[in-house]
Amino acid sequence: MSEQNQGPSERFQFELTATDGRARGGVVRTPRGEIRTPAFMPVGTAATVKAMLPEQVREAGADIILGNTYHLMLRPGAERIERLGGLHRFMNWPRPILTDSGGFQVMSLAQLRTLSEEGVRFRSHIDGSAWLLTPESSMEIQRQLGSDIVMAFDECTPFPATPEQAEESMRLSMRWAQRSREAFGDRPGHALFGIQQGGVHRELRQESASALREIGFDGYAVGGLAVGEGQELMFEVLEHAPNMLPSDKPRYLMGVGKPDDIVGAVKRGVDMFDCVLPTRSGRTAQGFTRRGVVNLKNARHADDPRPLDEECRCPCCRAYSRAYLHHVFKSGEIISAMLLTAHNLHYYQQLMSGLRSAIAQGGFDAFEASFHAQRARGDIEPV
Amino acid sequence: MSEQNQGPSERFQFELTATDGRARGGVVRTPRGEIRTPAFMPVGTAATVKAMLPEQVREAGADIILGNTYHLMLRPGAERIERLGGLHRFMNWPRPILTDSGGFQVMSLAQLRTLSEEGVRFRSHIDGSAWLLTPESSMEIQRQLGSDIVMAFDECTPFPATPEQAEESMRLSMRWAQRSREAFGDRPGHALFGIQQGGVHRELRQESASALREIGFDGYAVGGLAVGEGQELMFEVLEHAPNMLPSDKPRYLMGVGKPDDIVGAVKRGVDMFDCVLPTRSGRTAQGFTRRGVVNLKNARHADDPRPLDEECRCPCCRAYSRAYLHHVFKSGEIISAMLLTAHNLHYYQQLMSGLRSAIAQGGFDAFEASFHAQRARGDIEPV
Repeated sequence: MSEQNQGPSERFQFELTATDGRARGGVVRTPRGEIRTPAFMPVGTAATVKAMLPEQVREAGADIILGNTYHLMLRPGAERIERLGGLHRFMNWPRPILTDSGGFQVMSLAQLRTLSEEGVRFRSHIDGSAWLLTPESSMEIQRQLGSDIVMAFDECTPFPATPEQAEESMRLSMRWAQRSREAFGDRPGHALFGIQQGGVHRELRQESASALREIGFDGYAVGGLAVGEGQELMFEVLEHAPNMLPSDKPRYLMGVGKPDDIVGAVKRGVDMFDCVLPTRSGRTAQGFTRRGVVNLKNARHADDPRPLDEECRCPCCRAYSRAYLHHVFKSGEIISAMLLTAHNLHYYQQLMSGLRSAIAQGGFDAFEASFHAQRARGDIEPV
Repeated sequence: MSEQNQGPSERFQFELTATDGRARGGVVRTPRGEIRTPAFMPVGTAATVKAMLPEQVREAGADIILGNTYHLMLRPGAERIERLGGLHRFMNWPRPILTDSGGFQVMSLAQLRTLSEEGVRFRSHIDGSAWLLTPESSMEIQRQLGSDIVMAFDECTPFPATPEQAEESMRLSMRWAQRSREAFGDRPGHALFGIQQGGVHRELRQESASALREIGFDGYAVGGLAVGEGQELMFEVLEHAPNMLPSDKPRYLMGVGKPDDIVGAVKRGVDMFDCVLPTRSGRTAQGFTRRGVVNLKNARHADDPRPLDEECRCPCCRAYSRAYLHHVFKSGEIISAMLLTAHNLHYYQQLMSGLRSAIAQGGFDAFEASFHAQRARGDIEPV
């Protein structure tokens, strides 16, 4: 097919449609569908967004989900997923999927890790089998999975790190970024994102951004944050880090975060997010609302006929009381995770929708003020 | 409202619409909807059919579900459920609910049980609290729950039992049946079912049936089966037990069963069933198909792109491979229970639908022969 006959949907494209201060609104176009930004990507670690059917993830408002290369390569295996038609078909999610490079989870989950210039040797946390993950093998595995947005292989610099450690780690990641770019090659319709490192050091962030821009990517992630540095320091880094990256490409803040983290990061120019918080919290009785986090195991909910959030239109809040949620969590019933995960994902997607509308209308500041004012009120009074 | 203005849906009624041999087709009409018989009732023990949303239970084809009085009285409590608007509203299932009397599960789950003429004293298996369950309190609890079909309080005679034990137990249950009837009173739109006991002894079954008919109920259960006696002995009892009960009322075989148990019991004149098998099996990787039970944890499924049953139209078989089900069961993902429970309930409801159609067309024998022939072929060959 000639270039001219390709519709926009057959290529990977990012269009910036609105700005409000540094906050950006836009759309990422892929052959598998559009991603409205700022976007939140639910995490589908092991080929499932935990406790959700894919259609429920979509109903909550997600345009894209994230898959974990480390988990999938170990089980069920990337070659197997390729033979079965790719990750989209395997898990029945036809829309865009972003996969991480495996690097972060190798360093946090795998056993007997040895990091070298070549890559990382490790043993599986599941069965102890020996593996080697390199920029080249990460690109191959993400290709086998059929990922729409592939992440470069990097080392997530730990926190805290000395400036020397942060520099050495960042420079290794930049060499791996180059190798990732070469190994990825040219795959129309698929995107490769580079990952900025440099810890909390502005000059290292700048050096990393320059190296990545030199290589050239379809999008850019801010890596190495949300690793224990706290919101204040994270926002300090985000004061400058996103703006070092090309403005005409999407910017993705990996592993973030709490709702107020996201609002603050959007304010500072970030377009994409992922985090396990809404799904994990959905399994541990922590419900997100406009007014903060509610622990549904708390006895005060046992007789409360009201929904978790009376203004929420999610399947959980439309039909179930706090008393019911309290009961099913106390009883350890699977439906507790199903309902609260659906609610939490809906909350996150509504937050992103609100941010997008606010940016489009030039009302980000008012949105942010209202967001914080509602949370300051705390959860509703007991009945 | 006058009797004349009441539509059929405002009263509890049973209409026998077809017979084929001893097999019966019909419909139970209740204010909350119709129950097509033969009917299978999924079990919603603790105000949830495990791993399913109520709308998914309905989509699978269920007209009615069963709730467990013992579990609900202990947690979250029947008075609480009444304050919250009843069990239907609490669990978001607007259609008919049958509740058991609590007697069976008190005897199988509770601690420090003491049975007397009055009832059963016991301690909760959850927190050790002391309770007394009697025919009168069981009727009150089932009223608080808002049950559409209330079961009389009885003792499920254990197996094996001597004829003397079976007789003594049955006669106690008949005295409790009388007390249940009196305590239930007159509740238009709600039904009270009596429970036949008598173990495997024909004359005791006859005595029990006569006692129940004397008292008069809206429906009749065959109790005390599926307690370890095996299918052969169960079918022997069912050769005569159902026909001792009024033919113009529904007949319910409690706690049954495997698909071939149900086919054999329908053949012998039973109209209603409940069993945890499809839901429990959905959580332990056992999938029901036309060709028997399939263990999805078996390694032979790891690369199998085919659905569990290629002729099945359930949400699981329409979109997911055996390879995917294998993966999510091996990984302990919640979606494994969600998908396979949906499939198993669909299988059970399709079986009931097939039985109803066969009876309506006078084709029960051909249906039964085909049912057994398909199972004799075993599961499909590995790829």
